[in-house]
Amino acid sequence: MMSPEGYASARTMPAVIKGERAPGLTLVEKPIPSPAPDELLIKVRATSICGTDLHIYNWDSWAQGAIKPPVTLGHEFCGDVVEVGKDVKSFRNGDYVAAESHIYCGQCFQCRTGNRHICENEVIIGLARDGAFADYVTLPERCAWKTDRALPPHIATLQEPLGNSVHATLAGDVSRKKVVVFGCGPTGLFAVAIARLCGAAMVIAIDVNPFRLELARKMGAQHTLNAKQTNVVEAVMDLTQGRGGEVVLEMSGSPQAIQDGLRLLSRGGDFRFFGVPSDRVTLDIARDVIFKGAHIRGVVGRRIFETWFDTKALLEAGLDLNPLVTHRLPLRDFTRAFDLFKEGNCGKIVLYPQKVEE
Amino acid sequence: MMSPEGYASARTMPAVIKGERAPGLTLVEKPIPSPAPDELLIKVRATSICGTDLHIYNWDSWAQGAIKPPVTLGHEFCGDVVEVGKDVKSFRNGDYVAAESHIYCGQCFQCRTGNRHICENEVIIGLARDGAFADYVTLPERCAWKTDRALPPHIATLQEPLGNSVHATLAGDVSRKKVVVFGCGPTGLFAVAIARLCGAAMVIAIDVNPFRLELARKMGAQHTLNAKQTNVVEAVMDLTQGRGGEVVLEMSGSPQAIQDGLRLLSRGGDFRFFGVPSDRVTLDIARDVIFKGAHIRGVVGRRIFETWFDTKALLEAGLDLNPLVTHRLPLRDFTRAFDLFKEGNCGKIVLYPQKVEE
Amino acid sequence: MMSPEGYASARTMPAVIKGERAPGLTLVEKPIPSPAPDELLIKVRATSICGTDLHIYNWDSWAQGAIKPPVTLGHEFCGDVVEVGKDVKSFRNGDYVAAESHIYCGQCFQCRTGNRHICENEVIIGLARDGAFADYVTLPERCAWKTDRALPPHIATLQEPLGNSVHATLAGDVSRKKVVVFGCGPTGLFAVAIARLCGAAMVIAIDVNPFRLELARKMGAQHTLNAKQTNVVEAVMDLTQGRGGEVVLEMSGSPQAIQDGLRLLSRGGDFRFFGVPSDRVTLDIARDVIFKGAHIRGVVGRRIFETWFDTKALLEAGLDLNPLVTHRLPLRDFTRAFDLFKEGNCGKIVLYPQKVEE
Amino acid sequence: MMSPEGYASARTMPAVIKGERAPGLTLVEKPIPSPAPDELLIKVRATSICGTDLHIYNWDSWAQGAIKPPVTLGHEFCGDVVEVGKDVKSFRNGDYVAAESHIYCGQCFQCRTGNRHICENEVIIGLARDGAFADYVTLPERCAWKTDRALPPHIATLQEPLGNSVHATLAGDVSRKKVVVFGCGPTGLFAVAIARLCGAAMVIAIDVNPFRLELARKMGAQHTLNAKQTNVVEAVMDLTQGRGGEVVLEMSGSPQAIQDGLRLLSRGGDFRFFGVPSDRVTLDIARDVIFKGAHIRGVVGRRIFETWFDTKALLEAGLDLNPLVTHRLPLRDFTRAFDLFKEGNCGKIVLYPQKVEE
Repeated sequence: MMSPEGYASARTMPAVIKGERAPGLTLVEKPIPSPAPDELLIKVRATSICGTDLHIYNWDSWAQGAIKPPVTLGHEFCGDVVEVGKDVKSFRNGDYVAAESHIYCGQCFQCRTGNRHICENEVIIGLARDGAFADYVTLPERCAWKTDRALPPHIATLQEPLGNSVHATLAGDVSRKKVVVFGCGPTGLFAVAIARLCGAAMVIAIDVNPFRLELARKMGAQHTLNAKQTNVVEAVMDLTQGRGGEVVLEMSGSPQAIQDGLRLLSRGGDFRFFGVPSDRVTLDIARDVIFKGAHIRGVVGRRIFETWFDTKALLEAGLDLNPLVTHRLPLRDFTRAFDLFKEGNCGKIVLYPQKVEE
Repeated sequence: MMSPEGYASARTMPAVIKGERAPGLTLVEKPIPSPAPDELLIKVRATSICGTDLHIYNWDSWAQGAIKPPVTLGHEFCGDVVEVGKDVKSFRNGDYVAAESHIYCGQCFQCRTGNRHICENEVIIGLARDGAFADYVTLPERCAWKTDRALPPHIATLQEPLGNSVHATLAGDVSRKKVVVFGCGPTGLFAVAIARLCGAAMVIAIDVNPFRLELARKMGAQHTLNAKQTNVVEAVMDLTQGRGGEVVLEMSGSPQAIQDGLRLLSRGGDFRFFGVPSDRVTLDIARDVIFKGAHIRGVVGRRIFETWFDTKALLEAGLDLNPLVTHRLPLRDFTRAFDLFKEGNCGKIVLYPQKVEE
Repeated sequence: MMSPEGYASARTMPAVIKGERAPGLTLVEKPIPSPAPDELLIKVRATSICGTDLHIYNWDSWAQGAIKPPVTLGHEFCGDVVEVGKDVKSFRNGDYVAAESHIYCGQCFQCRTGNRHICENEVIIGLARDGAFADYVTLPERCAWKTDRALPPHIATLQEPLGNSVHATLAGDVSRKKVVVFGCGPTGLFAVAIARLCGAAMVIAIDVNPFRLELARKMGAQHTLNAKQTNVVEAVMDLTQGRGGEVVLEMSGSPQAIQDGLRLLSRGGDFRFFGVPSDRVTLDIARDVIFKGAHIRGVVGRRIFETWFDTKALLEAGLDLNPLVTHRLPLRDFTRAFDLFKEGNCGKIVLYPQKVEE
Repeated sequence: MMSPEGYASARTMPAVIKGERAPGLTLVEKPIPSPAPDELLIKVRATSICGTDLHIYNWDSWAQGAIKPPVTLGHEFCGDVVEVGKDVKSFRNGDYVAAESHIYCGQCFQCRTGNRHICENEVIIGLARDGAFADYVTLPERCAWKTDRALPPHIATLQEPLGNSVHATLAGDVSRKKVVVFGCGPTGLFAVAIARLCGAAMVIAIDVNPFRLELARKMGAQHTLNAKQTNVVEAVMDLTQGRGGEVVLEMSGSPQAIQDGLRLLSRGGDFRFFGVPSDRVTLDIARDVIFKGAHIRGVVGRRIFETWFDTKALLEAGLDLNPLVTHRLPLRDFTRAFDLFKEGNCGKIVLYPQKVEE
């Protein structure tokens, strides 16, 4: 069958892969994949870089345990369906889609009880199977998310990481609350904007990078604190009349942030762990958890598909992600993109396998 | 003891009372009350008219059962503390306060389990004891709410009715939801603004009065429907792609609105009864409640004091009530105020016992 | 392919169907169905009669609107898988299964957001497609529930209706609560047992049939009230020191029960509608819903598969359904079974298409 | 005024106090206290020993920071009201009461928003003011709990510590869940019984003391594990088909238990910290909290008075504490009681200031 876009005659495509058990990534030419019976083949319109990708790029200890090269990176993306497997029922060629990157099994206890995001058998795109740093990517139908063409590719690709923040930020009430966000990478910046949009009484954002703190202000934080220069526990206590943060969103993974965050959490406060610490962390459970009557949640991934519908609703309600997209580059400039990312003076970096779109 | 404001020498004060078992209200001169040991004496700065006051004014069947004349009306107000009873611990002369109008007993099962708003022995100011349509009013300390002087009197008096809407609107999630508000009196108008501030994906407001629908737009409703001119069930279905309203706030008390609201509620939707119907209502429980898996709550009063803190937080988060205060009059013009209210082309009407303040 | 049980050579089977638009059912011989690619063919071990079946038998106005003859009845059953469609992945011949009778689409908003029980496109077995009052029945794999052989068929078939009661009874807390159950048909009787097992402080069961009230006692109700002989509102108030029922489970569908149930609901109480009234019902919303701050839920079906796992856990925790199974008959005696059911002096009636099992 | 019981003529009473900054307690004769205007004077019928008392007895580092001698110990008790302060409204001489030992202020943010158990200004009886290891004790009226005479003193005094377990165990669902309890001191033993009464599917109790594990079986645990002899993580995984504990109640305060408990928590599981670790604890947040999507709560004290009503309801529902009361002694034998407690082969030890009652 000849596809309308003629991709099949182009038998190979460029792809950015982790080719060896060593730092760095490689641009290679590899065959265009074929979708399984329950899969879609998607021509990638835009893809974006996540902190996880940097871990893999740097080949740190986590990456060494988690990744088996060769694998094509990239789990945030959007694109056009160009081929559908024979058992696919809900999608067809020409659909514009984004992807739930955590491929759930659908059969385990968690999947059968409304918790697909903690599926016991999940496979993550761009880690355990080929991802979207390429012209084409395959995706099981059940993980595809039909997207309105009104969302341009550089926003549509952000639905996946935005979903993380939606899940974490709205895992409990934020309206009327004084909210503290640790970490102003994209996930924290999304959280700032979501908390403001949903009626937080105050949003305080904390990071060590002035560029990112400035982005946090643009996304709506009323107060920003540079943890290198300020005692953040004291500063948050001052800003909250000694009560502390009613909701603390930990988006940095820093052990110091975790300790400070629990310290400044108010009595009866609500703490959400999202940023993944690379090591074990020592906590004062008595003082910071028990005697406060704290609520703590670990948040991972997106509720499938509750969070996707929520994300859609927030975008419709006016959530503006544009200030956060600081760079748009061709995929082939991935080395420059990762350099920018490592340096830290950036928000979200969007990559275009085909051409950079407006 | 001589008060700093010399009120004690003024032994009487003007008060607007329900004096007889008949329609209308009367302006009389009556003694300034003395606070009990656990009470405050408050010099009223501003007071506002509630739908309940109109029922009493009109002396309808509900009022005939609920009110025993003579009683001074007025349960929405703010003012300055000018005398404190000897057992009062947390307030002193000069404090600027508003009032929880439902005086809870503190001893019953509901009061002892976090549900003072449904106290088994509640006494309501302006109904069962003298209210604030007067120069002075007494109030048990436990029902006083210290108010920031940054809130001008015409806003401070609205905290009580605003609290009703905060309670009803935030009794469950509104962020990300398509919200339908029936009734664009002040309670519905507050609800429109709260829902928008807290991230509703869409707010549809319904009334039969064009003036009030226009106010609803000013408060943030994206869509308004005139129930006299439109089939609201069909219109809401159209606006929601056939899914219906995910949250329906019934602030009108109209039987037709109740029936329409339950009809257009989405599957799994969340319906809140706040407007009090004057008669029994016939419902299609099977179709509109059971097969939809609907959630329904009856909402009364304010959670004491959770809702008051919430109200404060929303005002700090930027909730703007000014468009809704359409009239400010001297208390002595109460007849004109009630005429305006009956006519319906108004939002909230604020009355000033002393002088009309900016 | 020859099945191990040789069913394929028996080309037809007996089935109890609604054959005409008139009261009654008919025993016919019809072809054994073939499973679709995503379906199982199940040899029925036991099936049971539901109130819905009686509506269809009686051909009342609801049934006339809902059923298009001919259709084989029966949506509660268990059996052995004897053939699987080619796309089936999780089941194989010899599996012992029960069935979620509400076949959900898996694609609609509700299905994708954890609410398959209110699927927008559901098809119910035994109503809109052939059911289990027969030797064999087909079932989509996604609605099959693997069952432990330790559950004998007469209990395994009850998992479906038990699930209704689990869903309704545990839709909110019952532990520590005073619980009132209206209607002592099987659904109400299950609810009595579940509430007791889960730590209800008191269970009051209400019906008009002495035989069923006696069953309610056997299932654990501490108090039973015959609504024909007793003013149930007063009696419940007496039993609860004037506070009323904290949880009211409406399993009867009777308008009088609905009105009484809301009347005797405590302030802040939790009311669950499960029994389907055949007509509209007139309610005192002001007194019974708003001023009480009541919570009301409509409950339909089972959460898929949360409720099924819950049901399993309760059976493991010791829930004993045996007292409730009052009759076990061959399927061919369906007329006698429906007569018993109409008469009312019964609990659950189990029918066996093959042979009556111990 | 002469009291009906003539206590006033007995000007002094025996009391067991922490008299010096050193290990041990002392029996002294001290004046009978007088109640303040809002207080009750209570003649102690029974009092019981808590783990906190042992910390004070041993004068460990926590006690050295928390206690200022001299102070009479004892915060679990029941007794008869023998004098009421002049402002007391709800109690009178002869009332049989137990005590909420955390004296809340009633004025702070937490107290005003339904969270008195985390009052910002709490004062604990037997720690910061004189307790009940004496003939008489005073108590603010607002912290007294009227008790049914049907509860004998050795059970009535347990309402306070039982309340801790009720709060912790029912802070989320336990019905239908597989529950793991770490620590079989009285708090853990109560938790075992509560979880069973409220429909837990399985209760696994863990300790290092065989006597206490045997008590756990008596209270209803289906499985007990001796952490000295067994790898509890593996054992729980085996008992739960590899899924882990759905609810983990940490009642031991042991760092190893905390780490094991989080390790064996199921995906999406619910962990409650109640036992207070004496030092900081190192956790694997990524593996055990984030990737599991865990819910964690710190639980302290009792919800005032929600938990007290719950406790009453559970006792009415049949909760039997008798197996857990292993020793009843005269108060003057406090040294023997603490020796027993230190040795560990005991459940709850009840002390009687007057005479040992049946």
